[in-house]
Amino acid sequence: MRVVGIRGQGGGVEVGALSPDGREVTVVAALADFWADAAGHLAGHRDGPVLAVASVELVPPVLPDARVICVGLNYLDHVAEGSFRDRELPAHPTLFARWTRSLTVDGAQVPVPSDEDGLDWEGEIVAWVGAPLVDATPEEATAAVVGYSAFNDLTSRRAQKLTSQWILGKNGDRSGPLGPLVPAAEVGDLRAGLRVRTYVNGEVVQDGSTADMVYGVGDTLAHISRTFTLHPGDLLATGTPSGVGYARTPPWLLRPGDTVEVEVERLGRLRNTVVSNEARRPATS
Amino acid sequence: MRVVGIRGQGGGVEVGALSPDGREVTVVAALADFWADAAGHLAGHRDGPVLAVASVELVPPVLPDARVICVGLNYLDHVAEGSFRDRELPAHPTLFARWTRSLTVDGAQVPVPSDEDGLDWEGEIVAWVGAPLVDATPEEATAAVVGYSAFNDLTSRRAQKLTSQWILGKNGDRSGPLGPLVPAAEVGDLRAGLRVRTYVNGEVVQDGSTADMVYGVGDTLAHISRTFTLHPGDLLATGTPSGVGYARTPPWLLRPGDTVEVEVERLGRLRNTVVSNEARRPATS
Repeated sequence: MRVVGIRGQGGGVEVGALSPDGREVTVVAALADFWADAAGHLAGHRDGPVLAVASVELVPPVLPDARVICVGLNYLDHVAEGSFRDRELPAHPTLFARWTRSLTVDGAQVPVPSDEDGLDWEGEIVAWVGAPLVDATPEEATAAVVGYSAFNDLTSRRAQKLTSQWILGKNGDRSGPLGPLVPAAEVGDLRAGLRVRTYVNGEVVQDGSTADMVYGVGDTLAHISRTFTLHPGDLLATGTPSGVGYARTPPWLLRPGDTVEVEVERLGRLRNTVVSNEARRPATS
Repeated sequence: MRVVGIRGQGGGVEVGALSPDGREVTVVAALADFWADAAGHLAGHRDGPVLAVASVELVPPVLPDARVICVGLNYLDHVAEGSFRDRELPAHPTLFARWTRSLTVDGAQVPVPSDEDGLDWEGEIVAWVGAPLVDATPEEATAAVVGYSAFNDLTSRRAQKLTSQWILGKNGDRSGPLGPLVPAAEVGDLRAGLRVRTYVNGEVVQDGSTADMVYGVGDTLAHISRTFTLHPGDLLATGTPSGVGYARTPPWLLRPGDTVEVEVERLGRLRNTVVSNEARRPATS
């Protein structure tokens, strides 16, 4: 099953399930109702209206106030290629923040911001939290994950590296394309290894496996829950393997006209094109 | 004028204006309607229902998907007292993220998370963005600020310093008490100097002036708008002066039972009490 968001006429969002061919979507629940019992809705019978995908606007099925918590430096081969290669790996996951306003969907056009030479790619996987977590054990946290999605953590490297803190370069307009939510039961344990590949204009640039993650989803969520309470709908982006563009010689960044795809085993393929900063001007994203 | 949020029966939020004595609140608009034209609503005639403050739940007048962008290291005397004192000050503001779920109001009880010895105080000022900003000039960005609020950036120092990135320690439950929005026209230019004081159990622990800020509000918002588009309702927390607790010898952190107040000239006083982690358990914040 692939779960998506559908923008309604009045601006509200509903959650729906795509048909196997991706042409139809069955409405499951209003967004807030879905996240009030995500596990129940994913397991339940679906008899809502069926809409043609071509007739609706798809959006991420994400609550506006959800936290998008991102793990940096979660694959040793990515640490080794980047600017943190000479630092000791901390005992805890390095966490940075995206706001939900940076998220978008498969097919969206992503602008290169004004002062950037291009955007860098970071193919990865997002875990969706389905239940509140306070001081949770890793086992409780793992059990609370209701699904996973493919994700591209498109990065404005210049802005990211201006100071010690990364968040400016991690929140560009439409810089976080997110695939449909696939229920956790259909995905299994990430530690067993899902293949994650990123393609630029058809060429493979990243090819990793979630078996190589340093910090697991359950451990990371449990760690976070000791400082702040996780709520249903919160997201954990699990970090990217090696092969990003800025670490190459010479550096390689996405320019307007380029196509970038993230393909994750069992989660599907996410395809986005890059456009110029002019796309930010008329309609604010 | 002091503008607040009011939680409605169905969970929706309305924006209202407090009476001078703080006992009544006049409803101005629904939250999304307010931010669709904040400047107009602040300037307009108010003839909405008048409610007793004692009969309503006050909440921050913040859109769920607003960005709470925080400037770190914005006062030289605070840089000099902290763990970044030996690093060169970057040419650009150091920005970190809060999610709106960490925000709360005057009077709220703030828990010390599980693994912390206490919470640290950071009295400061938040600027509210009232218009979209894309590649704005500092003058355009300044003109887009519709109001300011007193803010306490209560920090879980241990979590903040676990890795290079600060956001875990900056998003504890109810760790961001925010005062009413005061219209920009009633506040004037922060560069002229507003006095910012923080009190712990009645004792002054911070006493600074916004005249000493390194990065101004207009410059910082203009800078951000070159990477991502600012939307009405986004917030900029402008950083704290010296006097925080962890930099003291011995360190001084807020423990359950302590009271912390932030008082800003023209913006008013914000008072919160600290409670134990047990407060996170029954009702998730």
